[in-house]
Amino acid sequence: MNSLSSPTLPLTPDYDAWPIEAEIRAVTHDARVVTLDWSDGRVSRYHGIWLRENAADESTVNPATRERILDLSTLPAWPEIAAAEVDAAGALCVSFAPEARVLRFHPGWLRAHDYDNGATQEGPLVPVTTWLGGPDASPDSLDASGLLDAEPAGEAEEAILAPALERVLGKGLVRLRGLPTAPGSLAEIAARIGPLRATNFGTLFDVRAKPDPDSNAYTSIALPPHVDLPTREYQPGLQLLHCLENDVAGGQAVMLDGFAVAEALRDRHPEAFATLTRQRWCFANTARTTDHVWHAPMIGLDERGELQEVRIADFLRGPLQAPFEAVEPAYAALMALQALLHEPQFALRFDYAPGDLVIFDNRRLLHARDAFAGGGGRRWLQGCYLERDEVRSRYRMIQRARRRRRLDSEHND
Amino acid sequence: MNSLSSPTLPLTPDYDAWPIEAEIRAVTHDARVVTLDWSDGRVSRYHGIWLRENAADESTVNPATRERILDLSTLPAWPEIAAAEVDAAGALCVSFAPEARVLRFHPGWLRAHDYDNGATQEGPLVPVTTWLGGPDASPDSLDASGLLDAEPAGEAEEAILAPALERVLGKGLVRLRGLPTAPGSLAEIAARIGPLRATNFGTLFDVRAKPDPDSNAYTSIALPPHVDLPTREYQPGLQLLHCLENDVAGGQAVMLDGFAVAEALRDRHPEAFATLTRQRWCFANTARTTDHVWHAPMIGLDERGELQEVRIADFLRGPLQAPFEAVEPAYAALMALQALLHEPQFALRFDYAPGDLVIFDNRRLLHARDAFAGGGGRRWLQGCYLERDEVRSRYRMIQRARRRRRLDSEHND
Repeated sequence: MNSLSSPTLPLTPDYDAWPIEAEIRAVTHDARVVTLDWSDGRVSRYHGIWLRENAADESTVNPATRERILDLSTLPAWPEIAAAEVDAAGALCVSFAPEARVLRFHPGWLRAHDYDNGATQEGPLVPVTTWLGGPDASPDSLDASGLLDAEPAGEAEEAILAPALERVLGKGLVRLRGLPTAPGSLAEIAARIGPLRATNFGTLFDVRAKPDPDSNAYTSIALPPHVDLPTREYQPGLQLLHCLENDVAGGQAVMLDGFAVAEALRDRHPEAFATLTRQRWCFANTARTTDHVWHAPMIGLDERGELQEVRIADFLRGPLQAPFEAVEPAYAALMALQALLHEPQFALRFDYAPGDLVIFDNRRLLHARDAFAGGGGRRWLQGCYLERDEVRSRYRMIQRARRRRRLDSEHND
Repeated sequence: MNSLSSPTLPLTPDYDAWPIEAEIRAVTHDARVVTLDWSDGRVSRYHGIWLRENAADESTVNPATRERILDLSTLPAWPEIAAAEVDAAGALCVSFAPEARVLRFHPGWLRAHDYDNGATQEGPLVPVTTWLGGPDASPDSLDASGLLDAEPAGEAEEAILAPALERVLGKGLVRLRGLPTAPGSLAEIAARIGPLRATNFGTLFDVRAKPDPDSNAYTSIALPPHVDLPTREYQPGLQLLHCLENDVAGGQAVMLDGFAVAEALRDRHPEAFATLTRQRWCFANTARTTDHVWHAPMIGLDERGELQEVRIADFLRGPLQAPFEAVEPAYAALMALQALLHEPQFALRFDYAPGDLVIFDNRRLLHARDAFAGGGGRRWLQGCYLERDEVRSRYRMIQRARRRRRLDSEHND
């Protein structure tokens, strides 16, 4: 086809790639709503106000940044639809009154945002599946030995990160193996996903027995199942633990799927589950140089009632501050949860080998540790935090790159 | 008094200092509850289970870290109170069955955690007050010229930070003046409060016109009132903007109290307010190398219905994904909000002078900017983010230091 004579599709208000799954066959409208008949039989309605705000022309979006500059309240009136049709490129063209402006919309983008048929980007990027541990279980493991040699954001990096991030999003846990053991290399590894979250423990923290510990983590005692930093309004989304050395006896890692525990609690002790979704506990770390306190339920649900996070760490709870009548029921619910946490079916146990990197969702998984011999041998993990936001962004970029490659290969056919 | 013969008060399960506001005059109990009569007439009940979990002895708390090691579900049974009395030091002594353990409790700590009388650490540390702008308003300003010479966590630093953090917690805004203008010095200044939050824009970011902008912020165009990074599940709590140079025409800073705007919306358009507390909008930054998306209401309330955050940034919204019937009401509510944002009574306008540092609550305040002349002169701000958690922790440490000094001065009397 000669590109000079070919009508081109309009820009979209983003940098993404939108394949044409179906074509617009017919357009009808009234003053408020445009209705599209698609080539596969689907019918989709779009409001004029929604189309007006999501146009991609220079009156709506800054072309340099692809960010919106339109303020709807400055329009002369609520935008009405004066005319609507499909043009030779297959785009939707709408004339808006009283602006007297004609705007064009990309059919692939319209189809992907078909809210009239329930399209939404709100669901999880990867289906969430809960899991049990037990003696025969082991963490999903992937060879990541090529990661640091891969070009950033290139296909070799993507081949390692895509399955890793899928497991983090779906199961809350993945083990990467074969990584370097140079101290500090975790910073470079983690930055392949996104920016690290610094805390009062630093950007990278060392988990090993220390002479003057400011946390039970920095001793050789056993740690009960817990999340890190429940004392923050927003607990770190991801924790990365990178094994540099390990030749001590004991100190096995133990991980539990907090969502599986919460679901078991809901099945077996529904009152305790309900109490723990409502009762705000005090999480506190009144340490020597910092004083972090936050009050929140132990089981967090989102607006749809889905599990969003757990916040469990007995050693980081301050005194419960609740109405007198709520105290004993709160403790009864807590003890039902604590008893579940001891059941061996939930515990996934494994040993760290040098070069292992375990990435887990710190707002979902509980991690624990057996006591280890602090005296002989060495056990050195380096850790850091980053956010669920960064995992989702990195994973979306991989999806976008794949869509773009698919589009490019279709154009080359 | 001879310290050898003086009975000592027990440890508390934290590192804080707890003055004795009143003494325990009488103790009664049954198997589940201890009742204290205080010297000022107050009566407080404490559950045995609550006392048992909040003891500070070595069976309950690791003395090296002051973190809990007790798991209630491992006790032989629900702890019952066998005996309770006040001892010669003024401490509460409780015998627990069936453990046959006697534990002592600090009366100042008990009094401060008197949940039976509604004691709670959940309220705001500083009362929240909303404010208007207008032509005669200016930001609260403090001389901070001595900050970087002050000893970290010392009294000179505290004298600058305490009133600054009070304003950030109460009004969401403070302007510090007289700071150095060396590029990068913001990192050292911000670290006096707590760890910085890095994003895909870096740890420190430069706000000035750039040739190849990846955000409208990095152009010279006007920016409408907005929060930063609404595309994250957890928007940065605090933003710090540090002026290094400013001799351009225009580019005045504009700040609005988003809580005052939300309250005005609630008063004048209660339906629009209700809609904006419920309707989840899509906040998206589908940029060239990152793809951050989050869905949330524009006005966030906490469990008690109090304003917790606003999430407003028209240029960082993606397409609304909502049921068909919800779309026009959502836009009507949005346009009511947008119209309020144009009212001059809300806008606090000021010019940045070199050495100014403006600290504001990015989940409460909206900031905007007039267009400025990109060609002539220079306007260079450096910015960074940190979290409300860190402000609260730093402010609590200041309160703790003051309590400790008060206690020490009483001991010296």
